[in-house]
Amino acid sequence: MTASNAIRALAALRAKPPLVHCITNFVAMNFAANTVLAMGAAPAMVHATEEAGDFAAVAGALTINIGTLSPPWVDGMVAAIKGAQAAGKPWVLDPVGHFATPYRSRVAADLLLLQPTILRGNASEILAFSGAEAQGRGVDTGDSVDSAMAAAKAIAVQNRCVVAVTGGEDFLTDGLRSVFVRGGHPMMEQVTAMGCSLTAAMGAFVAVEPDPFEAALGALLLFAEAGEAAARTAAGPGSFAVNFLDQLALIQPEALSSEKVLAL
Amino acid sequence: MTASNAIRALAALRAKPPLVHCITNFVAMNFAANTVLAMGAAPAMVHATEEAGDFAAVAGALTINIGTLSPPWVDGMVAAIKGAQAAGKPWVLDPVGHFATPYRSRVAADLLLLQPTILRGNASEILAFSGAEAQGRGVDTGDSVDSAMAAAKAIAVQNRCVVAVTGGEDFLTDGLRSVFVRGGHPMMEQVTAMGCSLTAAMGAFVAVEPDPFEAALGALLLFAEAGEAAARTAAGPGSFAVNFLDQLALIQPEALSSEKVLAL
Amino acid sequence: MTASNAIRALAALRAKPPLVHCITNFVAMNFAANTVLAMGAAPAMVHATEEAGDFAAVAGALTINIGTLSPPWVDGMVAAIKGAQAAGKPWVLDPVGHFATPYRSRVAADLLLLQPTILRGNASEILAFSGAEAQGRGVDTGDSVDSAMAAAKAIAVQNRCVVAVTGGEDFLTDGLRSVFVRGGHPMMEQVTAMGCSLTAAMGAFVAVEPDPFEAALGALLLFAEAGEAAARTAAGPGSFAVNFLDQLALIQPEALSSEKVLAL
Repeated sequence: MTASNAIRALAALRAKPPLVHCITNFVAMNFAANTVLAMGAAPAMVHATEEAGDFAAVAGALTINIGTLSPPWVDGMVAAIKGAQAAGKPWVLDPVGHFATPYRSRVAADLLLLQPTILRGNASEILAFSGAEAQGRGVDTGDSVDSAMAAAKAIAVQNRCVVAVTGGEDFLTDGLRSVFVRGGHPMMEQVTAMGCSLTAAMGAFVAVEPDPFEAALGALLLFAEAGEAAARTAAGPGSFAVNFLDQLALIQPEALSSEKVLAL
Repeated sequence: MTASNAIRALAALRAKPPLVHCITNFVAMNFAANTVLAMGAAPAMVHATEEAGDFAAVAGALTINIGTLSPPWVDGMVAAIKGAQAAGKPWVLDPVGHFATPYRSRVAADLLLLQPTILRGNASEILAFSGAEAQGRGVDTGDSVDSAMAAAKAIAVQNRCVVAVTGGEDFLTDGLRSVFVRGGHPMMEQVTAMGCSLTAAMGAFVAVEPDPFEAALGALLLFAEAGEAAARTAAGPGSFAVNFLDQLALIQPEALSSEKVLAL
Repeated sequence: MTASNAIRALAALRAKPPLVHCITNFVAMNFAANTVLAMGAAPAMVHATEEAGDFAAVAGALTINIGTLSPPWVDGMVAAIKGAQAAGKPWVLDPVGHFATPYRSRVAADLLLLQPTILRGNASEILAFSGAEAQGRGVDTGDSVDSAMAAAKAIAVQNRCVVAVTGGEDFLTDGLRSVFVRGGHPMMEQVTAMGCSLTAAMGAFVAVEPDPFEAALGALLLFAEAGEAAARTAAGPGSFAVNFLDQLALIQPEALSSEKVLAL
C-alpha cells in the first residue's frame, strides 16, 4: 500500500480542479468551501430542491452532510443524490450525530439506503448504523475508532461502499481492503467542522480518482499532513485553523506519505 | 464578590465538557461553535422542529439567538425551549436587534415570556424590552450600558432571570445582585458575532454552574480576559478574531480575575 | 479619473457608519459581515419576508447575493428590494453562478428586472445575462473580463445600472463611463466569498456615495489595495483571509489610488 494514488490524485485535481457540489451544515459551510478551495478544487454549495439535482449532474462529485438538517434540506439532499447517480457521479455521506435524535437517525438511515460511494463518520456515527449502542453525545463520538472496525466492515460490505471511521487515527475499509491512517493532531478536535471539511475533501478526491478507497485515503493523508504541519506554529485553535488552510494549499502531492498508512 | 465561582466553573467545564445546544444565526454559527469548543465545551447546532426538543433534553444547556430568524426557525426555538424546560435545563436568550422590525419585536417578546434563565443583549436590546425608546439601529446599540441599568433590573425581577447588558463594560444583575465587569477591548466590536458567541459561552457556563448569575459572570470574565489578551498582538480585526479563539483555549481558570468585577 | 470620490466615501463611511442590509449566502455570511465591519460600516443580515422590507427601509443600502438561494429566500430578497426602493435606497445585485441551473437563471433574470443600482458578477455571470454562451461552471467564471466588456455595457444601458465585472482585473461601466481597475492578488481566488464580500462592500460605499459608479469604484479600489497588502505576509489562503480583514481596517482613505484606475 503506497501513497502513489493519493499523490497522483492530488496532482490531478490541482491541474484540473473538479467542481465539488457540497450540501453541508451552516456551521461548516465556510470552512468546508475554504478547505476545498485551498486544496485546489472548486466548491459549490447548492441545496434547494429546485436546482440541486441539476447541479449535481454537472459537478464532479457530491458530498452530503446532515449537520443542521431540516425537511426542506433533506429533500434537496435526495434531489442532489438522484441527480448525481443519474449522471454516474460519486457521492459522499457524512451522517453527523445521527444517533442524537430519532429524526436524525431516520434521515441518516434513509440516505444510507441510497448507497453512498463513501461513508465518513466518527466511531459513534458508524457504530450507530450497525444497531450497536453508540456512546456518542451531541455530534461527538464517545467510542474509539477500534471499537467501530467490525461495524465499518459490515456496513461497507452490505452497502458496497467505502467506510472511513475518523478520529485520533482513522480506519478505512471497503470490506476487502482495510488500513489505518495515522497522523494529524489533537488540535483538530478543537476546531469545528474539521470532519465536515474532510468529507468535502473526499468529494474533491473522488471526483478525480475512480477508486473511492484510494480517493478517501488521499483525503485522509492530506488532512493528516496538514494537521501536523499546522500544529507546528499554532498557538491555539484559532491559529491552527488558519495554518491548516495555508497548509492545504502549500502541501505538495509528494508529501502524502505511505508511512502514515498501516495496511491490515 | 470574588471570581472563585467562575474559576471553578471554567475548570469544571474543561474537566467534563458539557454539551451546549445552540440555535444561533447564520453569521455567528461557525464562530460561536469555535468559541464553545475553544473554551473547552462541546457545541451542537440543531434547529429543526423535528428534533430540537429531543436534543435540548439531552444537552446541558440551550442558547437561543434570533439574529437571522424566520418562522420555521422560531418554531424550532420554541420546541427547543420547551424540551429544555421539560428536562430542567437552563437556557439563554439573545434577542438580536429586536427593536429593528415589528416581526422581530414580537418574536423576542414571545420568547422572553418563556422565561429564559439568562437574557443577554446590548443596551438598546435591553431597553427596548422595557418599553423605552431605544436608540439602536440594525443590530447595533445606540445606548450606553449605564442607561439600561434600571431596565435590566426591572426585567430581571419581572422575569426572574439574570440580565446581562454587554458593551464597552458589562452590567449584570438578577435584581438583587448587580455588578459591572470591566475589561475586553474595543476591537471586539469590529468582529461580527462576538456578542452571539458570548451568549453561547454563557450556555457553556450555565451548564455546569447552578447559579446563573455566577455562570453569566464567568462568561463575561472569560471574554474580558480573552479580549485583552487577543488585542495585545492583533494587527486588526482579522487577527484579533484568530487570537481571541487561541486565548479562549489558553486562558487558565485562575486567570479569571475579580479585579474586573465592581459590585454595586 | 482620480480616486478622490473613493477617498471621500471611505472617510465618510468611517465617520458615520451606514447600516448595510445584506442578504447573502450561507458560505459568505460571516466573511461578508466581517468585511463590512472591518472597513468601517455596520452590516446586518436579515432575510425573512416577515421583516426584510421593513429592515431595508431603515438601512442605508441593500445587497442581494443569490449564492445559496431557495424559494423562501427569494421571497425575502424581493421583499427587501421593494422595501429599499420604496424608501429610495440603492441596492446591489450579485447573481452568483446564475448560469448553472435553470432555476437560478430564472431567479437572477427576475431580480435584474427589479433594476439594481449596481450589478456585480464575474465575467461568466455577466455574459450569461446577455444571452451569450458563458463558459462558467459552478460559481466560477470560465471567461475573461475582456470578453464580458460589451455585454456589461449593454446591460448597464438597458437596465440603467452600474455593472462591475470582477476578476484578475475589474471592468466597471455605467454605459457612459468605463474603467479598468488593476490590483489585488491571485490569492483572492483561493478564499471563498471574496466576491460576495466585495458586493457587501459596494453596499457600504453606495450608502454614502450618491454616484453608484464612484461607489462601486471605491469598493474595487479598497479591495485591490487590501488584497495586495494582505498578500505581502500571507503564507497561504488561510492567513491571507485574516490579513485581508486586518487590511480593510488598516488602510487609510488616502491609500485608495487612482494609479490603479485606467479610464477607457
